[in-house]
Amino acid sequence: MEITVSRKAHFNAAHRLHNPDWSDEKNREIFGKCNNPNYHGHNYDLIVSVTGKVNPETGYVIDMKVLKDLIKKEVEEPFDHKNLNLDTEEFKTLNPTAENIAAVIWEKLRKVLDASLRLKITLYETKRNFVEIER
Amino acid sequence: MEITVSRKAHFNAAHRLHNPDWSDEKNREIFGKCNNPNYHGHNYDLIVSVTGKVNPETGYVIDMKVLKDLIKKEVEEPFDHKNLNLDTEEFKTLNPTAENIAAVIWEKLRKVLDASLRLKITLYETKRNFVEIER
Amino acid sequence: MEITVSRKAHFNAAHRLHNPDWSDEKNREIFGKCNNPNYHGHNYDLIVSVTGKVNPETGYVIDMKVLKDLIKKEVEEPFDHKNLNLDTEEFKTLNPTAENIAAVIWEKLRKVLDASLRLKITLYETKRNFVEIER
Amino acid sequence: MEITVSRKAHFNAAHRLHNPDWSDEKNREIFGKCNNPNYHGHNYDLIVSVTGKVNPETGYVIDMKVLKDLIKKEVEEPFDHKNLNLDTEEFKTLNPTAENIAAVIWEKLRKVLDASLRLKITLYETKRNFVEIER
Amino acid sequence: MEITVSRKAHFNAAHRLHNPDWSDEKNREIFGKCNNPNYHGHNYDLIVSVTGKVNPETGYVIDMKVLKDLIKKEVEEPFDHKNLNLDTEEFKTLNPTAENIAAVIWEKLRKVLDASLRLKITLYETKRNFVEIER
Amino acid sequence: MEITVSRKAHFNAAHRLHNPDWSDEKNREIFGKCNNPNYHGHNYDLIVSVTGKVNPETGYVIDMKVLKDLIKKEVEEPFDHKNLNLDTEEFKTLNPTAENIAAVIWEKLRKVLDASLRLKITLYETKRNFVEIER
Repeated sequence: MEITVSRKAHFNAAHRLHNPDWSDEKNREIFGKCNNPNYHGHNYDLIVSVTGKVNPETGYVIDMKVLKDLIKKEVEEPFDHKNLNLDTEEFKTLNPTAENIAAVIWEKLRKVLDASLRLKITLYETKRNFVEIER
Repeated sequence: MEITVSRKAHFNAAHRLHNPDWSDEKNREIFGKCNNPNYHGHNYDLIVSVTGKVNPETGYVIDMKVLKDLIKKEVEEPFDHKNLNLDTEEFKTLNPTAENIAAVIWEKLRKVLDASLRLKITLYETKRNFVEIER
Repeated sequence: MEITVSRKAHFNAAHRLHNPDWSDEKNREIFGKCNNPNYHGHNYDLIVSVTGKVNPETGYVIDMKVLKDLIKKEVEEPFDHKNLNLDTEEFKTLNPTAENIAAVIWEKLRKVLDASLRLKITLYETKRNFVEIER
Repeated sequence: MEITVSRKAHFNAAHRLHNPDWSDEKNREIFGKCNNPNYHGHNYDLIVSVTGKVNPETGYVIDMKVLKDLIKKEVEEPFDHKNLNLDTEEFKTLNPTAENIAAVIWEKLRKVLDASLRLKITLYETKRNFVEIER
Repeated sequence: MEITVSRKAHFNAAHRLHNPDWSDEKNREIFGKCNNPNYHGHNYDLIVSVTGKVNPETGYVIDMKVLKDLIKKEVEEPFDHKNLNLDTEEFKTLNPTAENIAAVIWEKLRKVLDASLRLKITLYETKRNFVEIER
Repeated sequence: MEITVSRKAHFNAAHRLHNPDWSDEKNREIFGKCNNPNYHGHNYDLIVSVTGKVNPETGYVIDMKVLKDLIKKEVEEPFDHKNLNLDTEEFKTLNPTAENIAAVIWEKLRKVLDASLRLKITLYETKRNFVEIER
C-alpha cells in the first residue's frame, strides 16, 4: 500500500524575470512587470509530497520532522529572504520563473531523499498562480 | 521535463438543477433544494491546469497572462453574474451540475489551447464540494 | 471580563440588485452586472459574533451549539438555496446588497439573543467583498 | 468521460503515537512530542474524492448528499470528539499516524461505495501536514 | 499614530470540558461530545495582536521576532502536544473552554509585554468557532 | 445605522529594511534577514475597510467598483511588481516596514475618500504577520 505524505513550507524572496540573450524591449514585451530591473518579490508557498510504502513499525512513510528539516536545509535556508537572481548560484544564469524554481527544488530534494520514494513539488508564486512537478 | 502550471479564477452565477423529462416530484426528490424553481447561486472557484514542456527561452510552460486572458474570454465573461440556465447557450438543455459545468469549461478551453498541452479543470461549487476533469 | 465568541455559517443564494424607482438604464449604470434580470448568485459566508461575560459554571459566553442552532433557524433555513428577491419576505421590497442582507440578519438574531449580549455580523459576499455591522 | 467529485468533512480527535513493542525511550526518540502519554489532538480535515462516469439523467457522478451521509456515518460519527487510541476499535492495536488513519478511512468507505467508482482519501492532520491514498 | 501588529501561531492539544461540581449526567447534557472522559483534541490557531505607537527609528510597533519568541515561550512550549487538563497547571481546576484558554493566554502575555502596548487575543478552536479577548 | 464594507486587494513587491543612520552591524542586528542588501519580497494582501451610513437609494455604503478602482489607482498601480525602496517616492527615505506601508496606504486613500467615511487599513506581509491602522 502506497501513501503520499505532504509537508507545507514557505520562503519570501525577490526575483526578476529576464533573458540576457534578448533586447530590453523584448524582455519587457514578454515578461512585462516581472522584468522590473529593480526586482519585485513573492511569498512562495511550497508543498513537498513524498510517496512510498508505510513502515509497519512507525506507521510513517517518512518522519515529517525529517522531511521538515530537509526542506529547511535545502530550500528555506538558501532561498528565504534572498534575491534569487543575485544571492543564489542556481538562478545566476537560470531565469527564476515559478517553473524553474520548482524544478531546482525538485533536483535538490531528489538528491537527499531515499531512492525508494517518489517526489512531487508544488510551488505557489501567488494565491492564483502555482506549478507542479512530478517525475 | 514536464511541468503543470495552474491559474485560479472565479465567477458568480445562479443556477437550478432540473431534468425536464422527470415529474416535479421526482426533480424535488433527486435534486432537493437545488431544484428551487427561482434559482439559487454560487461563487464558483476555478483552477485551470496546463501541463507541458518548459520553453527554455522563457522558462514558461505557458505565459500566465495569456492563460488568464483565455480564462477571462472563455469562462468569466460568458458565465460571471449570469443565470446559467437562462443566460447561456450551453446550459439551456444541459443540467448545470458542477460536473457538467466543469466539462463545458474543459471543452471550451481545450479548443483554444495548443494541442501539445494537457488540460485539467478543477471547479469548486462551494468550499466543501468540488470536481476535477482531466483527459 | 468580556469575551467575544464567533461562529461561522454559510448559505448559497441567488439575488439581483435593482431599485424599482429608477429607469432600467439607471439601474444598469449603478448596479452593472449585479442588475442582471435573470439573477446571479453567491456562496455567502457568515460570522456571528456575540460579546458578553463568561459564565463561571460553564466557561462559556454562549453555548456554541445553541448559537449554531439559532443561526440555522434564523438564517440558513430561510435563505439557503433561495432566490432572495423572490423567495423571502425581507427582500421583496429591500434591495439585497451585502449591507442590507447583513442588517436583516442582525435584526433577526438580535431578537432571539439575550439582551445582555452584544451582537456583530460579518457577511462575505465573495472572498474579496465583505461587510460588518455592530451596534 | 470520467470526472472526480470531492467532498470535504472534518472531525476533532485526540491521539498518541506509540509502538508497544518498543521501550519508552525509543518511543520518545521516534515519536517525540506525539508520544505524550496523556494524548494530544487535532482538527482533522478530510477530503473524499470519488471518480466515475457522469450519469446523463442526473448530471452527477454521485449525489453529494449521499456521499456526505456516507462520510458522516463511516467517519464523523465514529471518530469525531473521540480518543482514537481508546475509543475506537481500529486504533486499539494500530498506531494512529495520519497514514494509518487515512488507510482505515479508505477501507471503510471502499466497502460502502459502488465498485464502479474509484476512491481517493486526503487527510490533513494540520494545515502543514497531510496524506493521500488512492488505489 | 497607533498601529496594531498581529502574529499568528498554533498549537495542537487534547482537552475535555467538565465541571467537577456537576453530576456526570449534567456534564453530558451541557458539554455533549466535548465531555468525552477520554479527551478529544484540536489544532488551535492563535492570533496575538499588539497595539502601540510606531518607533520612528525601526518603523516597528514591536519586533515580530521578539513577539514570535514570546508566543513560543509562553504559549507554544507549555501547551503544544499537551493534554490541557492533565499536563498544564492552568487547566487543572479551570475548564479549558476556548474562552478560558484565550483568557489564560491573555494573562500570560500581558505580564511579559511592555505596559505601553495594548493586547488582544484571538483563538480559533476550529475553523468555525473562535473567541476574542481585548482589554 | 453604520456599516463597514471591506474590499481585498494585493500587490507583489521587493523591499529591504534599513536605517541609514545606523551602522551596517546594527542594521543586521535589528533587521536580521530583512536587511539583505539585495532585497527580498512579499505578496502583500490588503483589506480596505470603509465605514459609513447606507445610502437608502442604492443600499450601498460605497460602490465596491468605485472602491476597487481607487485601490487600483492609489495602491496597486504604484506598488505592484515594484521595489518599494528604489521605485517609489514614499519609501526612498521611509523604512518600508509593514507598519509604514500601511500608514502610507492609509494616507493615500484618506485623501480620495469622502470625509464622511471612516477608513481602516489591514495589510498582510505574510500569512502570519499583519498590521492594522484605523483612525
